[in-house]
Amino acid sequence: MSLESVRYSRGSLLVLNQLLLPHRSEYEPVAGVQQGAQAIRSMKVRGAPAIAIMGVLSLAVELASQPFQEISALLTFVRKSLDLLIDARPTAVNMKQAADELNAFLALEAEKPGATAKGLSESAIAWAEALLEKDVEDNRKIGDFGAKHILQDAGPAQSVCILTHCNTGSLATAGYGTALGVIRSLHSLGRLSHVFCTETRPYNQGSRLTAYELVYEKIPATLITDSMAAVTIRERHVSAVVVGADRVAANGDTANKVGTYQLAILAQHHGIPFYVAAPSTSCDLSLPTGDRIVIEERPSNELTDINGVRVAAPGIGVWNPAFDVTPHALITGIITERGVFKPDELKDGLTRDP
Amino acid sequence: MSLESVRYSRGSLLVLNQLLLPHRSEYEPVAGVQQGAQAIRSMKVRGAPAIAIMGVLSLAVELASQPFQEISALLTFVRKSLDLLIDARPTAVNMKQAADELNAFLALEAEKPGATAKGLSESAIAWAEALLEKDVEDNRKIGDFGAKHILQDAGPAQSVCILTHCNTGSLATAGYGTALGVIRSLHSLGRLSHVFCTETRPYNQGSRLTAYELVYEKIPATLITDSMAAVTIRERHVSAVVVGADRVAANGDTANKVGTYQLAILAQHHGIPFYVAAPSTSCDLSLPTGDRIVIEERPSNELTDINGVRVAAPGIGVWNPAFDVTPHALITGIITERGVFKPDELKDGLTRDP
Repeated sequence: MSLESVRYSRGSLLVLNQLLLPHRSEYEPVAGVQQGAQAIRSMKVRGAPAIAIMGVLSLAVELASQPFQEISALLTFVRKSLDLLIDARPTAVNMKQAADELNAFLALEAEKPGATAKGLSESAIAWAEALLEKDVEDNRKIGDFGAKHILQDAGPAQSVCILTHCNTGSLATAGYGTALGVIRSLHSLGRLSHVFCTETRPYNQGSRLTAYELVYEKIPATLITDSMAAVTIRERHVSAVVVGADRVAANGDTANKVGTYQLAILAQHHGIPFYVAAPSTSCDLSLPTGDRIVIEERPSNELTDINGVRVAAPGIGVWNPAFDVTPHALITGIITERGVFKPDELKDGLTRDP
Repeated sequence: MSLESVRYSRGSLLVLNQLLLPHRSEYEPVAGVQQGAQAIRSMKVRGAPAIAIMGVLSLAVELASQPFQEISALLTFVRKSLDLLIDARPTAVNMKQAADELNAFLALEAEKPGATAKGLSESAIAWAEALLEKDVEDNRKIGDFGAKHILQDAGPAQSVCILTHCNTGSLATAGYGTALGVIRSLHSLGRLSHVFCTETRPYNQGSRLTAYELVYEKIPATLITDSMAAVTIRERHVSAVVVGADRVAANGDTANKVGTYQLAILAQHHGIPFYVAAPSTSCDLSLPTGDRIVIEERPSNELTDINGVRVAAPGIGVWNPAFDVTPHALITGIITERGVFKPDELKDGLTRDP
């Protein structure tokens, strides 16, 4: 059975508490939006696609348990709930995109003749459930497009070695994964020689989560520190770097887990391709470039303490940006569920009819 | 009072157990060579210059407590002791250089008329003590040469911002430090705006030791993860990267703490200089290039466990090279106690008469 970041059935939502991984695999109930936002803020669930899915499903379970009489009260409740969920973590765009779409969808539904609060509530729940379905489906497409694209550059029947960063797998999405989805697809095609995953300081998503998924899936993999990326690319013959994204601007500039920017520089230096794998919902075409992407800065104790034990010297200042922006010029291609695009093709590729 | 990695007086050697830093500052007695090698192996003391000093001083205290009757027995004991100390950690050249010089020096002394085992033992002890003195003196020269050189590129009266890696300070040397010596000199000239130190995974020498020294010296400093180097260089306007060295080959190729190679790539990408600061004893002119430098691989639990607590997913493979080799083409200059040399000037610079 595949790993799942959330387990959902109508009226019931469980979230895998990723803070306890890799030691314990515990699913915790989420009764509504407040608990959903809290789970996002505390990073029990993380990864841009998973945050959005978890967010709208927490709204869905709350709607399932709480009947509304008035359409306007329902719409207000949905809007306020979604604002709370967006605020829980600002950098990833997926939650914001989902919120905008759900608000717009409900506003249209509310205009229809015979609309009722109960009917709208049902529609919102169904909409959230469809998002869950679609994410897994999109990830499989991302995996397949990405694997095929990367194999074009390899010789026939030749295997490739991939370096990845952070966690972009089943745990970061509704299932399968984005960058890790590409790795999964390469593995299932029998064309993956090895994966190197960075530990991804300060939050260790690589060593805790990606390593967990790779072991779970029996994919041949080695953990390295973030500082070993360059020597690994040079000496272990990495074929390509593939990462996820929290937000991609219209020109291809990409915000992703801090450390992504330097991996892109290292890939360019060694003459290997650098891919971003992300659903189109992570692409924010309203932003012309990455300059205006808000970068979340997280608490200093993520660096100075590990498992609650102080590591760093007391008194030292800390800078802890959670993400960085990789300029489009360093990106070979952006792998989406609609195909693989060069950064300058992304906007046209995503706005033309499917 | 300045921090000291070792405290020595004739017949007595104490080593600061750096494994306990930054929480506790405890000096432990080292009675002789076996304990010296053990302190190096277990990384109670680390840093290429400090390893050599600690090694020869552990021999000095053992010689002070153990009289030899025969010259040949003494020479054999010294040679075997030095071999043991070299084997404790293979990558840094300083211990090997010190051993070769001490063996050669004693062989010459033994040839002199009237040589005695007691006299030779005294000479060996005095030789070790001179090494301790010289290291601090050389580090001050490295600091001054480096600071002046870096300031040449800055405007007059302009301050510089330095990024450094690992620990190269008083704790890695007999005192003052190499790369951190350059930072200290810039600070005492009033021309240092800020230092960024990487935490330096997996052993956290940056967060534990460099941060400790910077706080101790009240130098304005910020800790970042290794993965934040590129975004820090770009957004915090780093003027130069300065690191230490475990071994520099004749062409300037430099083995240093893993992660150094990628910092050099990042410096080049951002158009800022990349300096290696090291005493001439870290330069191994017998090696034409860095290709043949032995890179120590350390246990996987340094990555998977922190403070004895498992962090990484069980079952994941690990690669843990302690060092990497930075090609000379990425190095702007090598700062030694004899001046600052471009990589292609290093060999001539160090072999011409002072």
